[in-house]
Amino acid sequence: MIVREQPSTLQLFFVLRGSILTRIYPKILFFAAWAALVDLVSVLSTSLPAPSISSMGVFGVALTLFLAFRNTIVFDRWWEARKLWGSIVADVRALSQECLIHLDAPEERRSVLLPVGRFFHAHKAMLRNTSDDALPLHLETDAAAPQGVNVPAFWLSQAAQSVHALAKADRLDAMGRFALSNRLSDLALQQAGNERIKYTPVPFVYSLLVRRTTYVYCALLPFALADAGGLFAPAITAVVAYAFFGLQAVTNELEDPFTLNDNGLPLDAICRVCDNTILAALDQPTLPASAPVDYVLS
Amino acid sequence: MIVREQPSTLQLFFVLRGSILTRIYPKILFFAAWAALVDLVSVLSTSLPAPSISSMGVFGVALTLFLAFRNTIVFDRWWEARKLWGSIVADVRALSQECLIHLDAPEERRSVLLPVGRFFHAHKAMLRNTSDDALPLHLETDAAAPQGVNVPAFWLSQAAQSVHALAKADRLDAMGRFALSNRLSDLALQQAGNERIKYTPVPFVYSLLVRRTTYVYCALLPFALADAGGLFAPAITAVVAYAFFGLQAVTNELEDPFTLNDNGLPLDAICRVCDNTILAALDQPTLPASAPVDYVLS
Amino acid sequence: MIVREQPSTLQLFFVLRGSILTRIYPKILFFAAWAALVDLVSVLSTSLPAPSISSMGVFGVALTLFLAFRNTIVFDRWWEARKLWGSIVADVRALSQECLIHLDAPEERRSVLLPVGRFFHAHKAMLRNTSDDALPLHLETDAAAPQGVNVPAFWLSQAAQSVHALAKADRLDAMGRFALSNRLSDLALQQAGNERIKYTPVPFVYSLLVRRTTYVYCALLPFALADAGGLFAPAITAVVAYAFFGLQAVTNELEDPFTLNDNGLPLDAICRVCDNTILAALDQPTLPASAPVDYVLS
Amino acid sequence: MIVREQPSTLQLFFVLRGSILTRIYPKILFFAAWAALVDLVSVLSTSLPAPSISSMGVFGVALTLFLAFRNTIVFDRWWEARKLWGSIVADVRALSQECLIHLDAPEERRSVLLPVGRFFHAHKAMLRNTSDDALPLHLETDAAAPQGVNVPAFWLSQAAQSVHALAKADRLDAMGRFALSNRLSDLALQQAGNERIKYTPVPFVYSLLVRRTTYVYCALLPFALADAGGLFAPAITAVVAYAFFGLQAVTNELEDPFTLNDNGLPLDAICRVCDNTILAALDQPTLPASAPVDYVLS
Amino acid sequence: MIVREQPSTLQLFFVLRGSILTRIYPKILFFAAWAALVDLVSVLSTSLPAPSISSMGVFGVALTLFLAFRNTIVFDRWWEARKLWGSIVADVRALSQECLIHLDAPEERRSVLLPVGRFFHAHKAMLRNTSDDALPLHLETDAAAPQGVNVPAFWLSQAAQSVHALAKADRLDAMGRFALSNRLSDLALQQAGNERIKYTPVPFVYSLLVRRTTYVYCALLPFALADAGGLFAPAITAVVAYAFFGLQAVTNELEDPFTLNDNGLPLDAICRVCDNTILAALDQPTLPASAPVDYVLS
Repeated sequence: MIVREQPSTLQLFFVLRGSILTRIYPKILFFAAWAALVDLVSVLSTSLPAPSISSMGVFGVALTLFLAFRNTIVFDRWWEARKLWGSIVADVRALSQECLIHLDAPEERRSVLLPVGRFFHAHKAMLRNTSDDALPLHLETDAAAPQGVNVPAFWLSQAAQSVHALAKADRLDAMGRFALSNRLSDLALQQAGNERIKYTPVPFVYSLLVRRTTYVYCALLPFALADAGGLFAPAITAVVAYAFFGLQAVTNELEDPFTLNDNGLPLDAICRVCDNTILAALDQPTLPASAPVDYVLS
Repeated sequence: MIVREQPSTLQLFFVLRGSILTRIYPKILFFAAWAALVDLVSVLSTSLPAPSISSMGVFGVALTLFLAFRNTIVFDRWWEARKLWGSIVADVRALSQECLIHLDAPEERRSVLLPVGRFFHAHKAMLRNTSDDALPLHLETDAAAPQGVNVPAFWLSQAAQSVHALAKADRLDAMGRFALSNRLSDLALQQAGNERIKYTPVPFVYSLLVRRTTYVYCALLPFALADAGGLFAPAITAVVAYAFFGLQAVTNELEDPFTLNDNGLPLDAICRVCDNTILAALDQPTLPASAPVDYVLS
Repeated sequence: MIVREQPSTLQLFFVLRGSILTRIYPKILFFAAWAALVDLVSVLSTSLPAPSISSMGVFGVALTLFLAFRNTIVFDRWWEARKLWGSIVADVRALSQECLIHLDAPEERRSVLLPVGRFFHAHKAMLRNTSDDALPLHLETDAAAPQGVNVPAFWLSQAAQSVHALAKADRLDAMGRFALSNRLSDLALQQAGNERIKYTPVPFVYSLLVRRTTYVYCALLPFALADAGGLFAPAITAVVAYAFFGLQAVTNELEDPFTLNDNGLPLDAICRVCDNTILAALDQPTLPASAPVDYVLS
Repeated sequence: MIVREQPSTLQLFFVLRGSILTRIYPKILFFAAWAALVDLVSVLSTSLPAPSISSMGVFGVALTLFLAFRNTIVFDRWWEARKLWGSIVADVRALSQECLIHLDAPEERRSVLLPVGRFFHAHKAMLRNTSDDALPLHLETDAAAPQGVNVPAFWLSQAAQSVHALAKADRLDAMGRFALSNRLSDLALQQAGNERIKYTPVPFVYSLLVRRTTYVYCALLPFALADAGGLFAPAITAVVAYAFFGLQAVTNELEDPFTLNDNGLPLDAICRVCDNTILAALDQPTLPASAPVDYVLS
Repeated sequence: MIVREQPSTLQLFFVLRGSILTRIYPKILFFAAWAALVDLVSVLSTSLPAPSISSMGVFGVALTLFLAFRNTIVFDRWWEARKLWGSIVADVRALSQECLIHLDAPEERRSVLLPVGRFFHAHKAMLRNTSDDALPLHLETDAAAPQGVNVPAFWLSQAAQSVHALAKADRLDAMGRFALSNRLSDLALQQAGNERIKYTPVPFVYSLLVRRTTYVYCALLPFALADAGGLFAPAITAVVAYAFFGLQAVTNELEDPFTLNDNGLPLDAICRVCDNTILAALDQPTLPASAPVDYVLS
């Protein structure tokens, strides 16, 4: 995730970090050249057929709305994923408080909190297809997830088994057991939400429909502009291509909010916050918060 | 559900799997031909009356908004159905954890979890109008749903009866009984949500209004383009027909999110996730996760 | 509620059941005739003043957005009402399960479930301004609602009194009492939601604003089309009138989602589902599900 | 709140009650006159500069979207306030049921319900800046809110103190105390929601931006219409002014949903529903429901 | 937050407090001057190339939609932050009631409520990057937050420890402990929500895309208006720049809802409401409510 101040007007056109321009400039140049070519032919031959700019207008409004629709649903996924991770933060904090309230001994709290510490790191690793990076401290739990299971769910089960053992040993009363059990179920709910977003892409057909239509639109636009836009045609075509392909590129990037690109969610930073919550609850020294590197918070 | 990477620009126009084009190309061809015919007549006879392209514009904006409205509500249904199935996954995981916490013996957990295993398969079968495909393991529960009842609800009642029996036998205390009972009620809520989506279509009148208007629009457009669009008229008409009929076809397909088409929800894969949760909770070996076949995850 | 397959293209223009056309055709014909008259006058007298079609465009976009706004909020009400009834279904199922879990004897379950059976029928009757049609089975409860009270709320209180009596008689422990009490409160919440939708219409001023503007728009449009739309003017005016008045008529119909028209919610069918849940919980034979009559499910 | 049937087409243009026209007609007349003046000058002097109607179109679309945005968020506030009051109704009903379930003696129920009866009247009075109009019956509670406190919150505290006293006196067990306490917390949540809406207006800058732009738009429009709209210019300007200023006036009125104007929420009627719930729970005769006066339900 | 009545029509154009004009007038003047220059050159040289106003229209609609999208998501953040603070108010009130219900002695209530009083002030300070301004009364708790921890979370943990101590000392039964624990978890949820909004800006790429496109649009517009808009070109360009840059400036300001500018949330006033709730629960005299200074409530 990019973290930086709004650039000033002068800087605005020279900011590359976080700009989509670096990825779509070939398309922009191509369509600008195409517009110049059409302009040239239209000057040489007056008989070039031309759709009116108004007919492109109807088309453009429809295209804009479809782009806006896809953008909106993709942004909603991104923001929902952020909310789910925010709820994980809240649940880890609440679980720490509840361990404080319902359990007396530090090693009892530890037996519940450490598997949960493993949980969110495994969850992050699963969403990002990376390897698990749980902290050394967390690794002290000696169990390892068996093959073939959902690893984050396994760690939640481990926490549940700790709760069961504590209750059996009469170290946790019925209400406390109920409270901790509910909190673990909440974490399972956030996990299922993130997995839903990860494994259910926006229907493929939307992106096909929108991308195809955008290409056709940008290809036809110069004909309409040949008359109406005059020598501005290449510039206008380039700007339109920038706006439409740019939005499309953003949309593609936000569709999987968990990847490690400029617009991915800062899961490392969020997991660090959760780590520190657990460390504080266990009276351990906390770790420094994550900081952005080259304006990017990973 | 189609699961594939975004195609490159070159591939983009040749992707057929997941494209709506295979179903709507007759309409596109028809309206392109109609536009060519109108063009021809308009060249032969200058007296052909023509609505201005601007008057089509007003019409087009209205049509686009109505299409966008119908598309939005249908997509919301599709996504809500996915969320509800995500909640079923979360609830099955939470129920497994709660069985671990509140029940001591494996056969006790089994008596609650197996009917729930039957529940989600029966629920899927009901939503898809297919036969129940619960796993052999699940079928070990000897009860069979009687005629005339809501089968998924029947299996939830069976789970509830197990909870009642366990409580009567003093194997489950009041808080545990309350927790398991709440979880089963949550599953009933997700079920009612899916049934609502399945059995309450979008008001029929919207689709009539939108479909009729689209046909009239595509029929009138060539007259407006005869002057304004010139020789591009058939191409523009074809693209407009592609965009409008394409969106409509997508919308029709997403309206029932449970069917087995390219955009249907991957209920088999989701039920497999739930199966594995139950298997893991019963210390049984898990099954391999579902994989897409020809880019389609069923 | 209309329940039918999407008609084929050929059928599309001849479907009357569920079409809004039967109600708004006088307006469409009137404005088509008005457009023809304006056309005629404009041919006879060249001095007829004409607003440009573009100026109508600005107006048309605004009108479309206002129509779309009103349509969206009204559809949201309709869908929220459906969700609330879906929650009633879920709550009745959950209550049945909870009675199974927390109560031992069939007559104890009966004393809670029968008043709830009366509740949803009374609620439906209140929303539809019809008389209560609770099943004979349900009528066995001998109490009758006194004058002047909110009848559905009265039946929920009766269920609450059964819960109180069962708890007093030590047939229900504290957690069970709490669970059943919460479920009844949930039903009260759904009831209040439906009453809110029933008794709080969309602010009257919106419909005035939109309806007046639509009339003025359709009256001015032919002048703008006299030049721009040529002989197509009556056809275009008719289609625009169809789209705008059609959407308005749909909106008016959906505003009260509980009425017995083509787009009303199928409350009879939903209550039947609830009836069967209660019958199954009491080990009684269930009733056949409601089926659509002439494509309409009441 | 206006409660009336949709007027027929003939009545439509003569309805004044509930119409926004009575408040904005000076602006409409002013801009119509301004358009006539511009028309006149433009006939006398051909050199009058004129922005093209298309350039006004871009402007108009932007203005429409901003108006629609402000209208949407304001309507959402209005509807959310209505939902919160609906939740108050549901909570009062649920509290009555819970008092029935968890408390044995009528005077015990009374000690909890009467302060709640004071609560919602005080809440209404605070939102409307009127004096408290709690029923004589409610006033029997002898405590009076001290100076400087939040009066509705004070009455909820009184109810909480009754719960505490009942629990101390062993008239209410732990679960019952928990249930009643939760219900009172729910009421505090609805109260905070309404206070949020009351005391946090929509950012002032939106209304400035929209209102200023609307004035400029209506002032420039006649120049664009002088050519394009011909003699229709004053009529079109008047209709546009009606639509834009009308929507703005509605928006201003809905922004504070609690005021006593045509579109204010019917808090008196809602409080009456709550009064009757409490009266019924205390076996007292209920009061007649509120009825609209001159189509307005207060 | 600006708190003032809607200005009258005459005042409307002279209101500066709360207007965005004071910040964006250089941009407006610049583009007006640019339009005048283009106009001048176009009069001197007829060969100036000009994009048609219609081609700017397509562009303008797209730009408007992107601006509207960004504005909508930013406003939603602002309103969500307000809702979260409203929930903090509700939770503090509910916690006070619950302390009243579940705890007997004032000093017991004090031990839970004082750390919570520290919590929301620390939370405000963190969101605003200011120093903590908890009231003297609150400061009586002698613990100080250690270095490196999340300060608001620390204070919630302190409250949790009080709950634990009270339960250990048998001054709080299991249900009461559960109720207070849940309430503290709710506060942790609101805190995580606010931190999410504070530390997750809207994807940077949106603002780049929108800002760049706006500059290009305003730079090209005068060429299109040179013909079409005539001498009105500078005026129209200025108004368009006002609308587009104005909306952008508002959006930038609302993006961080916690800052101390004209549109920031009135966190001081909200914390004062919470302070008074705690003071009232401890039978202390309350403080006067915050009042706006120069129309601004901080």
